[in-house]
Amino acid sequence: MLAPRKELNCLPDYVPGKSIDEIKEKYNLKHVIKLASNENPLGPSPMAMAAYNKCVQKLHLYPRGAAPELVKKLAKKWKVKDENIITGNGSDEILDLAARAYLSKGDWAAGADSTFSVYSFVTELAGAKYKAFPLKDFYYPLEVFKSAKIIFICNPNNPTGTYHSNKKIFDFLKKVPKNILVVLDMAYWEFTGESELPLNKWIKQFPNLLCTRTFSKLYGLAALRIGYAVASEQIIATLKKIKPPFNTNYPAQMAAAAALDDVAFAKETLQMNAAERDDLTFGLEVFGFDVLPSGANFVCVKVGKKAAEFVANLESKGIVVRHLKSFGMPEWVRITVGTPKQNAMLLTQFSRQS
Amino acid sequence: MLAPRKELNCLPDYVPGKSIDEIKEKYNLKHVIKLASNENPLGPSPMAMAAYNKCVQKLHLYPRGAAPELVKKLAKKWKVKDENIITGNGSDEILDLAARAYLSKGDWAAGADSTFSVYSFVTELAGAKYKAFPLKDFYYPLEVFKSAKIIFICNPNNPTGTYHSNKKIFDFLKKVPKNILVVLDMAYWEFTGESELPLNKWIKQFPNLLCTRTFSKLYGLAALRIGYAVASEQIIATLKKIKPPFNTNYPAQMAAAAALDDVAFAKETLQMNAAERDDLTFGLEVFGFDVLPSGANFVCVKVGKKAAEFVANLESKGIVVRHLKSFGMPEWVRITVGTPKQNAMLLTQFSRQS
Repeated sequence: MLAPRKELNCLPDYVPGKSIDEIKEKYNLKHVIKLASNENPLGPSPMAMAAYNKCVQKLHLYPRGAAPELVKKLAKKWKVKDENIITGNGSDEILDLAARAYLSKGDWAAGADSTFSVYSFVTELAGAKYKAFPLKDFYYPLEVFKSAKIIFICNPNNPTGTYHSNKKIFDFLKKVPKNILVVLDMAYWEFTGESELPLNKWIKQFPNLLCTRTFSKLYGLAALRIGYAVASEQIIATLKKIKPPFNTNYPAQMAAAAALDDVAFAKETLQMNAAERDDLTFGLEVFGFDVLPSGANFVCVKVGKKAAEFVANLESKGIVVRHLKSFGMPEWVRITVGTPKQNAMLLTQFSRQS
Repeated sequence: MLAPRKELNCLPDYVPGKSIDEIKEKYNLKHVIKLASNENPLGPSPMAMAAYNKCVQKLHLYPRGAAPELVKKLAKKWKVKDENIITGNGSDEILDLAARAYLSKGDWAAGADSTFSVYSFVTELAGAKYKAFPLKDFYYPLEVFKSAKIIFICNPNNPTGTYHSNKKIFDFLKKVPKNILVVLDMAYWEFTGESELPLNKWIKQFPNLLCTRTFSKLYGLAALRIGYAVASEQIIATLKKIKPPFNTNYPAQMAAAAALDDVAFAKETLQMNAAERDDLTFGLEVFGFDVLPSGANFVCVKVGKKAAEFVANLESKGIVVRHLKSFGMPEWVRITVGTPKQNAMLLTQFSRQS
């Protein structure tokens, strides 16, 4: 019999999620509001859409593996060299490349217990162990583990939305031995409203830092799968060695490059998110729910022991949110901050169940 | 110091290829004909382009990880169950998933010496060894290696274009022990003009067979990165376990599903390719070049010891072909079959150098 690697036994079986269409059919609904995947409620960046449309005549041509147009723009944005950037099929792929490049059997990687599941997935797939440390009062635990090979930090943390300041991350990085790779996943950072990291300086001071970013959230390009990372030349060269030759698709490269110029769209997204996040938090608190302080485009809400039932009930009314049982927070849900109208409808449903 | 896995030392450093624009600039050319990547000279499938255009409003939404619409159509095409299909970010990704799922350190995979480089790449990345067996009179070697964990077969073979009949592959599969995974990469099969494999029967008889296919060639969708595999439920379930959650992008899923209906485009592509491949082969032979019999959308041509110079000279005239030095065939080049006009221009240049 054909036998896969033994290590695969510890991985869970694949279970596909329900689609919007399946939910509509199940509950006989005309409309469904999906607030479960932290997608941009304003849609895609219009400048990215225009760039996407222009690619249609070139779909038969292989993309350039190094995504040079996009990399050049990113290098300019971050004031670093092209050699400090790698693009990925979503930032997920870069997390996987990091694990494949640095983790061997017997190694372990450190991260939180309630965080983005891909960290443990890529670690275990690489044959290493993932040690999950508990959140500290719902904040990501920052620790130095001398025998860890990788430390994954999600800032802001998915699904809590809590985040550490640049200062705190900086102080932490100073303490980490340079033979440990620190993967700093900042997929949601723009939504904090805080200033950006001076990555050009940080990657010089911390040659063991890999900062991952995405176009899926702020720029509204989740469908295209495009993310990137900024790091020292040494790390980037290592990841490029094991990168599949054509990992990012051509429309994604072009749309992402255009999105970086779409300042108006980014501003509108951030303003709406900040205002709506405040209102949503306030509304949910008025109804008696605990809401964590969020620096992201979602809020994390405690709905109690009957959370599964609560979520199923919301779903039957056409509102889909994320139950956090699989994140180790069975009494909590994660709700994407939507448009004013979507949030109003969500609050109405919450008021009926509170 | 931060150290990557030792196994990575054996992998070559990443060297990006030259772009068309760089070639234009270097030689001050207005037009460049690229016959180096086996892209469809007729462009993308028109039905795929229409489906692509329809996706623009949904770029902010995550794709469904299982690509259900595409999988359903593929299952119908091959008369198999949805559970017998997996889609990938190009068929490259499926080759990688296979290596990651089945190869451990100490294992080895078998393949040809002059073939698609991704087989050895994914094998070595998985920490296993790739044993390269020489082509037999330019045909892919079919051997049974009882201690191999995976046998990679490229049929038609890239870069020679030679192929084995279904009957010969079938007879080979019967001899392979069932604990060895046979990866049958048929990216170019449609161009042979032979009948399709009865995969629904084969995957039942050979639960150790994984057949990979692509939308990059016949359907002209290389830019979108979409491929798939057909295999037993057991293999597909294993690959799904380690598949990244959102590996294929949404436009790729939709365009590929539409391309399957584009019978007219596929027919036109295959007819033009067959006619032009004959003419190109004949022309090159008239000029005194050895040309291998091809079942693909390219021809493999012996240009002799000065092949590098020959290719550079062609490039300076605006015609880009693939020198096969990296494939272990330093005296040979691979030329994509282009349009009648492209092929005429190529033949003109060859005649001047013959």
